[in-house]
Amino acid sequence: PRPLHVVALGGDGIGPEVTAQALRVLRHMQARHALPLVIEEMPYGNATWRATGRLVPAATDAAIGRADAILFGAADSLGRSAMPAEERARGSLLALRRRLNLFANIRPVRTERALDEVSPFKARTLRGVDLAFVRELSGGIYFGEPRGIERLEDGQRRGINTHSYTEEQVVRAARFAFALARGRRGRVTSVDKANVMEAGALWRQVVGALHHDEFRDVALDHMLADTCALMLNRDPQRFDVILTDNLFGDLLSDAAAGLAGSLGLLPSASLSPPAPDGRRRALYEPVHGSAPDIAGKGIANPLAAILSAALLLRWSAGAEAAAREVEAAVSAALSAGARCADIALPGEAVLDTAGMGDAVLAR
Amino acid sequence: PRPLHVVALGGDGIGPEVTAQALRVLRHMQARHALPLVIEEMPYGNATWRATGRLVPAATDAAIGRADAILFGAADSLGRSAMPAEERARGSLLALRRRLNLFANIRPVRTERALDEVSPFKARTLRGVDLAFVRELSGGIYFGEPRGIERLEDGQRRGINTHSYTEEQVVRAARFAFALARGRRGRVTSVDKANVMEAGALWRQVVGALHHDEFRDVALDHMLADTCALMLNRDPQRFDVILTDNLFGDLLSDAAAGLAGSLGLLPSASLSPPAPDGRRRALYEPVHGSAPDIAGKGIANPLAAILSAALLLRWSAGAEAAAREVEAAVSAALSAGARCADIALPGEAVLDTAGMGDAVLAR
Ligand SMILES: CC(C)[C@H](C(=O)O)[C@@H](O)C(=O)O
Ligand SMILES: CC(C)[C@H](C(=O)O)[C@@H](O)C(=O)O
Repeated sequence: PRPLHVVALGGDGIGPEVTAQALRVLRHMQARHALPLVIEEMPYGNATWRATGRLVPAATDAAIGRADAILFGAADSLGRSAMPAEERARGSLLALRRRLNLFANIRPVRTERALDEVSPFKARTLRGVDLAFVRELSGGIYFGEPRGIERLEDGQRRGINTHSYTEEQVVRAARFAFALARGRRGRVTSVDKANVMEAGALWRQVVGALHHDEFRDVALDHMLADTCALMLNRDPQRFDVILTDNLFGDLLSDAAAGLAGSLGLLPSASLSPPAPDGRRRALYEPVHGSAPDIAGKGIANPLAAILSAALLLRWSAGAEAAAREVEAAVSAALSAGARCADIALPGEAVLDTAGMGDAVLAR
Repeated sequence: PRPLHVVALGGDGIGPEVTAQALRVLRHMQARHALPLVIEEMPYGNATWRATGRLVPAATDAAIGRADAILFGAADSLGRSAMPAEERARGSLLALRRRLNLFANIRPVRTERALDEVSPFKARTLRGVDLAFVRELSGGIYFGEPRGIERLEDGQRRGINTHSYTEEQVVRAARFAFALARGRRGRVTSVDKANVMEAGALWRQVVGALHHDEFRDVALDHMLADTCALMLNRDPQRFDVILTDNLFGDLLSDAAAGLAGSLGLLPSASLSPPAPDGRRRALYEPVHGSAPDIAGKGIANPLAAILSAALLLRWSAGAEAAAREVEAAVSAALSAGARCADIALPGEAVLDTAGMGDAVLAR
């Protein structure tokens, strides 16, 4: 089979720094497991715009066209407010999601035993959280039409967005969630507001029917989105796979991220449906953003980016063993006391970005 | 002025039990402060439906028509799945909100010092949380048209809901939030997804303009809804008043409720715009639901209902001093060690519902 084409887009803020460490780890695994990867690093983002007048220069655009997998750093959308709206739209994450047809966003949230003391909540109840979001990424209020601002007869304005889901969109995301749960603890919690939204009632019905027809071996429960927000805080261990629409997933996965010791540990993967050759296109990205306050200092925690590379090994390269090695190396580094500033207790020795990369590579 | 007409609807599950204690406290304050209140207790809910075939019998319906304030217990919508859809709709909280024209839902979330040890997070970082949601309650995806399930040309179904906000709706909720902040710590955080939704961009613009024109003494910041979900977990003390639309408020206020020691402590108030005589119609309700698992046992914590009665004293009866007395009595009871089962540590003595009512009344 042709090699897997990986395009690295470091992007804004700390994106390039953490992506560099993820690439070190990826190249190491490539050599160690003789993986057929082609890796291209391409310019993208606000610095690129300042240099070239484009967020996504033509060469980067072409590379994205060839990419099976994108290793993404960060996009600082606030830093783009002065750019022309068209350029901002072209360079946005939403544009990338649409272009690659990414329909499922996977976000594992796991609390590391080694970091119990670092959780802002120091919480006995947080021990052993191990859940994963499957967030539908192609539909809902993000893309529905009609949308916009209209002028009413009385002169005032009205803002409108449309939340829309077809059965196919729901089935596709739900099927992915059920399959994922089979490789985990076998439980899916499907989230909606069926008590308020007809589209939520349809969501619930379609997920239930698919479960009945194809996934009766997986445990399914339906939960209202507000209840899920509450339960994530009160009993996060009860969750295995959480299936959500685009908007609920946006809020709930960030709420869950707040449970972990630091955003600096959380990776994500966004996948397209499989092509006829079975291959999915995908984008891998740490959950933290561009963190402009610490950008350029070389102190950002690269673990979320490194764990995103592990997801790339798993989902795009089909190299499960390599993915597990990376994840185990991260846990081992943490257990041995490796800390960046975001997860250090007062007085603890702190590694810089490259130092944490070394600590992982050493294992 | 004519007396304030209060209608108590205990409703389902633990609703009647906790409402009974709230009414004891309310009647006590009525006598103590010579407040001009007329209080009617009316049948409502699933038991009423079983007895009369109506969730809201005619007499209750008429009482609601007369009510200035409703003291609401709980509605168990799951328990209503066997009822005709029309009856469910007529008896729903959404129908009440619409009928009373309730546009602002206020939910204070405060951590009680006495309960530090009870928080599921035992969290030093949770000390001193003192925030209040102002959730817009009349618009957004809850009520927007078009809505429903349609059949597409290819035979599959599509669920649609419309998120819609007029400038007037936003101004009305924002004005309320700014005014509320003036009596607190003078800070409003307005929540939206302006980066994704045009209606969110309009929300941001309208709130900003109102701030500029009328409330420059209040500090305003805008926050994306996902960031707010994260920050509620990581740094909840930073918030004073959080202004949200209907849907974001639903999720975020439940997420924040998860921070408190127990849902059993959280009250809420929903208000209409003032009538020409200055009076608002209102509904007061504990944030916890009907809790069918403990209903009928007399062990539910009545503090959320009692604190909801305090909000009634404040917002409907204009009896600020009485409201504060109730709130202080609740804090004093907790400081003296009064506990219901939901907030007791293992081995601690536990009061039943009426016992907690006594403990508050004794102060
Ligand atoms: C940047 C923004 C469009 C995006 C979203 O809302 O989906 C972000 O919050 C995310 O979760 O990836
Ligand atoms: C019962 C339901 C319609 C309601 C809502 O979604 O608004 C509830 O969750 C609430 O927050 O009061």
